[in-house]
Parts: sequence; structure tokens; C-alpha cells
Amino acid sequence: MSSPRGRGRPRGGTDSRARILAAATEEFGEHGYDRATIRAIAARAGVDPALVHHYFGAKADLFAESIGVPLRPDLDVPRILEGPREEVGERIVRYVLGRLEQPDVRRRTVTVLRAALGAGPMAQPLIGFLSRELIAKVAGATGAEDGPLRANLVASQVVGMVIARYVVRLEPLASASVDEVAALIGPTLQRYLYG
Amino acid sequence: MSSPRGRGRPRGGTDSRARILAAATEEFGEHGYDRATIRAIAARAGVDPALVHHYFGAKADLFAESIGVPLRPDLDVPRILEGPREEVGERIVRYVLGRLEQPDVRRRTVTVLRAALGAGPMAQPLIGFLSRELIAKVAGATGAEDGPLRANLVASQVVGMVIARYVVRLEPLASASVDEVAALIGPTLQRYLYG
Repeated sequence: MSSPRGRGRPRGGTDSRARILAAATEEFGEHGYDRATIRAIAARAGVDPALVHHYFGAKADLFAESIGVPLRPDLDVPRILEGPREEVGERIVRYVLGRLEQPDVRRRTVTVLRAALGAGPMAQPLIGFLSRELIAKVAGATGAEDGPLRANLVASQVVGMVIARYVVRLEPLASASVDEVAALIGPTLQRYLYG
Repeated sequence: MSSPRGRGRPRGGTDSRARILAAATEEFGEHGYDRATIRAIAARAGVDPALVHHYFGAKADLFAESIGVPLRPDLDVPRILEGPREEVGERIVRYVLGRLEQPDVRRRTVTVLRAALGAGPMAQPLIGFLSRELIAKVAGATGAEDGPLRANLVASQVVGMVIARYVVRLEPLASASVDEVAALIGPTLQRYLYG
């Protein structure tokens, strides 16, 4: 799998890369995800916009790097939404749990989730990122006029599941198997999407 | 409605009351909700346990006062669980939204929710309080062997709904009417409880 960062590194690359990441964090924090631009981030870092694309690819990649979490709903969600429609609810639960059962992903996701729910500078950009890259795609997939509301409901149950199982660690939900949780929560997402 | 605080106030009452509240916050923070006792709180405040009961009633009252939020699931939930079983899901949603549509309740609840999801000293006591006073009661009401898991699922959707609508303010969910939200999320809770 070829990544934008795999294409070789110019002299002084580590410095530029770190400067771009710092500039991106500032830019996302000040202007939110939607209004931040690669051009403004490049200007802030004192580099050419082409170098930002070279290191990080698209804005979604740069955002994921800047929060240090491998969240790429823009890549993963279309794959989940393909395949048999009657199993989409369960596939979403299995995807989320599949990622979060990995300890390092879980640790970083919980940190980001806490930041998103707090009042820190990255809260609004994170919500913007998820709205644009995740919720809008789910809304489109429903093919329904009230797709955005349906996607909000899916998000509400997914966030609640993650908090109950991984942040608050409610028992017995925290110790239930992925299969059990998928069988219990999958139908809820199914109804929100297509019910 | 008679409250424990309505029974008259001894001389120096304001001082004792404040000392008891400070002692309660420390005790809950150090030992959690379940293991904190009125006796230990009284000792810490240098007062007689009877005075703690006089001012605050039961441990649940004292906890609600110490976090500054009028959360009394131990009183409200039994009322919600009475009445027609087929409407319990909707009644829960209407109860939660009914409280949170009040700006001062919303503001304080969001603060407490952020504290509960953070790593502060009141996070674990709050989770203990809700597990003991709310989730255990809901679990009992299902009359099912897997009642605790069902109650966890209800909690996951309720917390997710509160976060999506009031903390993150996802649109269009944040602007939807209480009736709409009750019609959408009520059946989910219904299925988790009795499905």
C-alpha cells in the first residue's frame, strides 16, 4: 500500500513535516475543519502547499495525523456501506469494535473523544471532521430525505456504545463479546439507517 | 413537598452544611460512591452523622448536592418504569429531554458529563452513583436474567443522545423536537428493555 509519505523525503524533511503538523493543529484549532485550508496551513508553516500534499495527502489525512489517531472514516465508511444492506448495522458495530479492541487504537481514541467532549481547541474541528467525512457519507448512503437525521442517530448510538464500553467501562457491556454487542446494537443502527 | 433542609436550621448551620458538602466531595472522590459512608463524611466534617441526615437525607441526596446537579434517578426512575410497559422507551427519552431542555439543568449536566468522561476525581463516583441508583433499577425493571446488560444498552443510547444533542450539538438532531426524538429513540430503548 503506497502512502504519500513513502515517496521519499527531501533534505530537512523532518523539520518541515513537524512544522506542517504544528501549523495544521493551529489552523484547525482556529478555523475548524471545514474552513481550514491546505494553502493556509502551508503559509503558516512557511512551505509550499505541494509539500503539504507530498507529506500528508488530502486534508482528511493531515487532520488524522494532527490528532494522532488512525481515524479514516472517509476511506473505511464507503467499504462498510457496500455489501448486503440488511447487514450494514452489524457491520458498523463490528468495524468500530474491531478498531477499538486494539489497545493502542483504544487509548488514542479515548483521548481524542475526551478532547472532543471537552472545551479544548480541537473539540470543534474534530466534530467538523466527523460531520463532514463520516456523518454526511452515512446520510447519503441511506438514500432518504431525512438522511442527515438518521446519520445523527447512528452517531449518537455509536458514541454512546464507545463511551459505555471503553471509557466508563460499564459491566457487563464492557466484557461482552464483539458478537454479542453486534447482535444487540446492530439492529438499532439498521433501523436508524433504513427503518 | 417537604425537604430534609426544610426542617429548620441549627445555629451555625450554614457553616456545618458547607463543611459537610466539602467532606462529602472528598469522601466520594477518594472512596467512590458505593464505599463512601455518611458516617465517614460526618467524621471528616467534624459533625454528628445525624446532622448529615438532617441536612441532606440519604446518600443519594448528598451526592446530588455535592455535584450540584438535580439528578435524582433513584426517585424519578421508579415513576417512569410504572405505567404502560409498551411506552417505557418513549417515557425515558421524554424524561431525559424534559430535564435537559431546561437551560440551567442542561448547563450543569453537561459540566458533570464532561467530568464523568474525564479523568478527574469525581468521574468514578459519578459512574458508581449512576450504576447503583439508575442502571441497577432499570435492570430490575426488565425482569430479565440479562437485565444488567439491557440496562447498559439503555444507558449507552441515552448518553449518546445527550452528547449528540446537547454537547456536540449535531444538526439536525439538536434542533429536532422532543416529540420527534422520542419517536425515533424511544423504540430503541423499548427493544433494549423488553425486546
